[in-house]
Amino acid sequence: MQSAAYGPLMIRTAILGASGYVGGELLRLLAAHPALVPAKLFGESKAGQPVSSAHPHLAAAFADRSFEKFGDRALDDVDLVFAALPHGHSQRLAATILDRQIPFVDLGADFRLNDSATYERWYGDAHEAPELLDRFVYGIPELHRDAIRSAKAVAAAGCYATAAILALKPLVDAGMIDPASMIVDAASGVSGAGREAKEATGFSNVDGSFAAYGLVSHRHTAEMEMATGGTVLFTPHLVPMTRGILATCYATTTGEGDPLDFLRVAYADEPFVHVTDQPPATKWVAGSNGVQVTARRDDRTGRILALSAIDNLGKGAAGQMIQCANLMLGLDEGAGLSPIGVFP
Amino acid sequence: MQSAAYGPLMIRTAILGASGYVGGELLRLLAAHPALVPAKLFGESKAGQPVSSAHPHLAAAFADRSFEKFGDRALDDVDLVFAALPHGHSQRLAATILDRQIPFVDLGADFRLNDSATYERWYGDAHEAPELLDRFVYGIPELHRDAIRSAKAVAAAGCYATAAILALKPLVDAGMIDPASMIVDAASGVSGAGREAKEATGFSNVDGSFAAYGLVSHRHTAEMEMATGGTVLFTPHLVPMTRGILATCYATTTGEGDPLDFLRVAYADEPFVHVTDQPPATKWVAGSNGVQVTARRDDRTGRILALSAIDNLGKGAAGQMIQCANLMLGLDEGAGLSPIGVFP
Amino acid sequence: MQSAAYGPLMIRTAILGASGYVGGELLRLLAAHPALVPAKLFGESKAGQPVSSAHPHLAAAFADRSFEKFGDRALDDVDLVFAALPHGHSQRLAATILDRQIPFVDLGADFRLNDSATYERWYGDAHEAPELLDRFVYGIPELHRDAIRSAKAVAAAGCYATAAILALKPLVDAGMIDPASMIVDAASGVSGAGREAKEATGFSNVDGSFAAYGLVSHRHTAEMEMATGGTVLFTPHLVPMTRGILATCYATTTGEGDPLDFLRVAYADEPFVHVTDQPPATKWVAGSNGVQVTARRDDRTGRILALSAIDNLGKGAAGQMIQCANLMLGLDEGAGLSPIGVFP
Amino acid sequence: MQSAAYGPLMIRTAILGASGYVGGELLRLLAAHPALVPAKLFGESKAGQPVSSAHPHLAAAFADRSFEKFGDRALDDVDLVFAALPHGHSQRLAATILDRQIPFVDLGADFRLNDSATYERWYGDAHEAPELLDRFVYGIPELHRDAIRSAKAVAAAGCYATAAILALKPLVDAGMIDPASMIVDAASGVSGAGREAKEATGFSNVDGSFAAYGLVSHRHTAEMEMATGGTVLFTPHLVPMTRGILATCYATTTGEGDPLDFLRVAYADEPFVHVTDQPPATKWVAGSNGVQVTARRDDRTGRILALSAIDNLGKGAAGQMIQCANLMLGLDEGAGLSPIGVFP
Repeated sequence: MQSAAYGPLMIRTAILGASGYVGGELLRLLAAHPALVPAKLFGESKAGQPVSSAHPHLAAAFADRSFEKFGDRALDDVDLVFAALPHGHSQRLAATILDRQIPFVDLGADFRLNDSATYERWYGDAHEAPELLDRFVYGIPELHRDAIRSAKAVAAAGCYATAAILALKPLVDAGMIDPASMIVDAASGVSGAGREAKEATGFSNVDGSFAAYGLVSHRHTAEMEMATGGTVLFTPHLVPMTRGILATCYATTTGEGDPLDFLRVAYADEPFVHVTDQPPATKWVAGSNGVQVTARRDDRTGRILALSAIDNLGKGAAGQMIQCANLMLGLDEGAGLSPIGVFP
Repeated sequence: MQSAAYGPLMIRTAILGASGYVGGELLRLLAAHPALVPAKLFGESKAGQPVSSAHPHLAAAFADRSFEKFGDRALDDVDLVFAALPHGHSQRLAATILDRQIPFVDLGADFRLNDSATYERWYGDAHEAPELLDRFVYGIPELHRDAIRSAKAVAAAGCYATAAILALKPLVDAGMIDPASMIVDAASGVSGAGREAKEATGFSNVDGSFAAYGLVSHRHTAEMEMATGGTVLFTPHLVPMTRGILATCYATTTGEGDPLDFLRVAYADEPFVHVTDQPPATKWVAGSNGVQVTARRDDRTGRILALSAIDNLGKGAAGQMIQCANLMLGLDEGAGLSPIGVFP
Repeated sequence: MQSAAYGPLMIRTAILGASGYVGGELLRLLAAHPALVPAKLFGESKAGQPVSSAHPHLAAAFADRSFEKFGDRALDDVDLVFAALPHGHSQRLAATILDRQIPFVDLGADFRLNDSATYERWYGDAHEAPELLDRFVYGIPELHRDAIRSAKAVAAAGCYATAAILALKPLVDAGMIDPASMIVDAASGVSGAGREAKEATGFSNVDGSFAAYGLVSHRHTAEMEMATGGTVLFTPHLVPMTRGILATCYATTTGEGDPLDFLRVAYADEPFVHVTDQPPATKWVAGSNGVQVTARRDDRTGRILALSAIDNLGKGAAGQMIQCANLMLGLDEGAGLSPIGVFP
Repeated sequence: MQSAAYGPLMIRTAILGASGYVGGELLRLLAAHPALVPAKLFGESKAGQPVSSAHPHLAAAFADRSFEKFGDRALDDVDLVFAALPHGHSQRLAATILDRQIPFVDLGADFRLNDSATYERWYGDAHEAPELLDRFVYGIPELHRDAIRSAKAVAAAGCYATAAILALKPLVDAGMIDPASMIVDAASGVSGAGREAKEATGFSNVDGSFAAYGLVSHRHTAEMEMATGGTVLFTPHLVPMTRGILATCYATTTGEGDPLDFLRVAYADEPFVHVTDQPPATKWVAGSNGVQVTARRDDRTGRILALSAIDNLGKGAAGQMIQCANLMLGLDEGAGLSPIGVFP
């Protein structure tokens, strides 16, 4: 379960963005991790405040800890960096971390795409560190395990992208669907929008309501296309729930057989991916690093339907970051993680 | 606002299924209707019990009323029948009502399809009254106003179907989309499943969860295909909210122009349909007979995206039934109805 | 239904704070009111923006309307003023409105208490217009009907206070409970906190959570004590729901008999108050001006338990404001209002 | 962390009621427990069905397991029994388990009270095994640790009772409150009502609603009185959330000092109880075995206010059962448990 290089169960981990929701989930998971130790908790806006001010659920476990500012000596004695920062911040920080050769798992979108032109097209402004793009491996362990294992820097996949890609990629690879025809109709819990106060994510606005957003222009489309090698029309929706993403994916059938069989083969040895013959519900994986996927063939309309459910803060964020780090550090890939959701 | 034939504001209305959620919504709306009077409230399983036992929100307004059994003289002195019964019941009752020439608005799926073969294919068993199928007009007032006006029996459209058809039909008619390519990815609040106690719709099961169901086989597909004249792949989802349906629809683009313009033209004079340039949220129409629709053209993927939001108990059920009845009886079509949702 | 003084159904109403949640509820109700016309919609922060930007549910009904700034001629041709402003604003505006003799219903807390010392004790700063305090009548129509009818200015009761007072006052008056012993343990939906974006009322924070706040110091305690003439320990809670208040009240028993009987007598002729023998649920009155109350005598512990449910935006705000205005203007007290909740 | 008596980390555990919500939570926790092994999963109504049919969140971890009927050899090779059965079942089963000397943790209410007369008064019928009552220790480890450690049978405290007693008991013991004056106003998530389908706990009924139930007669009152030694007026409420209990408790002040100090002293060494100066929210302890408590002194009204938050399925059920079992078996008391909630 542990890497010789790092000594007995003591990898000093820095978290950038420790006061956000993903930061809190990282802390919750690291509190039970056998090797990763939450050594430095950076949170600019809450620097100096106790951890419990942002994360009251961690009050007992992090009783004497506070958030710090990211200063000059921030990375001294740090063995691993997790960043869960607002979009754009990683572009400015990455060089500092990479220069020090510290293993780095970034949840930002900054280094997910593999060319700066695609980045610019979807994100609207020029990339500030395009020369670093090829230093990062795109990170979904089930699909890019070897590359992650040997990487120094990983750009963990986005939550929507993780759900959609895990449902679609095996079917593209099997020649079962036309990659030019993919539609991803997905829905997320509200925590995916972060913890910053916004009227749009206020309780009274969201409760009892279901709506789409980012029509035909959501940035995560680019990741889905990069990772599947096809064309995707992506429509995200906001669900009145806190955690969870369900991706309902459609594509034109091009191959024979039952798509469920291909998913079963693809994920036979994956501890975190469960192929089910039931339509998966987000609550089945809430609070976990699990994924549940299914698929159907509809010969009447000539389409394949593939669905996957994850927790956007788990497999879609903190869980996946830890899974990537475990691989990078030579630890047991599943250390500190579980596929079991908190249900009901 | 009133029809000479029925005298001053006094149309004696019978409700079959008065103790269910749609029944309760009909009573709520009729309590403020200028002409329709809730004269007989049939509810087999709760016969003899006070209205407030099933509908505590109506306690003040229906203080001395109880549910009745549907007996021999049930339809005496009745000017209008609303039926909101479990699937299959209307097939057995319809002849009795039609024989008496009483205007009849049925919310069941029994008489929505126009041929018994299609019914059998989707519903799995033979229709018990196929000879009555052509006596019913399919009822979405915005699309079938004249037919409803002259009908004696209307099969009000289902909630999912109403949402999807209102989004797609104008675009099919305008030649903007390929009718063979339609995908309807829709999501409903839990009240759409009725009030019968089921584990699947228990609070603990649904809260915090989002899932699809009825994959590639949901019966309402047939209505959508009949009313649009195309082929539909329909995936319904359950949302942790009580009321509301959002239909997110996809189809291959075949025409020029902005689909929003076509929707604006189609619904320019419709008091209950609001064409918006924002993605509509279900809460904007909760508790109302309103519909909010939008659309987008995505030339990158060659597809049109059309969305519509309704309240499944309002425009998707009780509201639409009343709107149909108003037309059938020569009343003001909007009597007792509002497009304004209860928000937040 | 209408007052001779105001002509046929045309009372020009100004709303201060029209872009907030209470403002939206006032507009929703006024859209169906037979006499009050929403003539001027003041909303400082959203001045110039269309009504639908803040109130998408009103998009169809207020299609061409925008919010205005409250300028010099704001009150010209205005027959009635509703104010639903953040705490403190009314103190600065009241004189202007009163000077013009325009009937004024204020939802703010500024003029609810009848002496400035009590105000200062609970609100922490000096009242800016203490000389106007006695120009306002405290407004719960069921308890202060005559005073409201002859008032020019009404301070509508707060939402928590309305619920608690309607449950307790008849029992105090009947000598059934010791007024020195009252405990009000109440819970509110999140819309009571207004629509301003705050982390505390963000969806992810509230969903799945129940908590108390304002322990032993909530300002509405003062109103409850003033209106009941006793001493109250008040604990408010936040419920993961949008609308509704339930007050669960306790007091030491001092009299004989069943408290339910006293409530039945007190509210026998009240169209908006329903005395029930069931524990009332907030959803039974959601979206309405209704109140449902019950009570129990527990001789084992020597206490009376009294509960009441209202919609904080309805009877606890916009509904009560309209009910007060109807009285002040000599209209039918229930015009534009309903006791029927939107259920489920 | 392990008991010599039981060998290396291998205590064969039987769960009665394994298909219910508490059963599922026990399985989720045991999957990560270092010593307790879920060896036999009894579930009468679902016998023969796979675990994933009732607990889809456990699909990956319990892939090949099914529920069994409780037959003659059910307890062979069993080292520990957990029972989470509907009320009344334990009275019939207890003798069988006790006769075999198998350590037994029962979550039912059957053996919580220490005399059959009190049982009969609150539960309405005669106890079927009164001779076994004194074989059971009432189980809240923080208050009855030594007794549990040496017990063969523990009746784990109910969820409401656990929350209320942990808030009140230290204040009674300190002489800070009058034990004759206690009021417990508490609210629970819906999972507390079990997973059986009931209209009252259907999503549409509960969502957006808050209500009290069991007025002045809830059975858990008896436990609270037994464990605190005082008199309690208890009012439970149902909150539209799945997990969590908040107890808001009131009592007349009889002593000096700050109640928060007494709580801090009482719980200084308790790993699962966190004394906070903030009003605790249920979400802070969701999915955990944690408790967060606070208190206030209100000299204005002469009362103490004490609040505590737990997860009804965690510290209020499965977590507490495991904590008791750990003590009974000589394991680390916190094995397999965490005080950290899943937030947000």
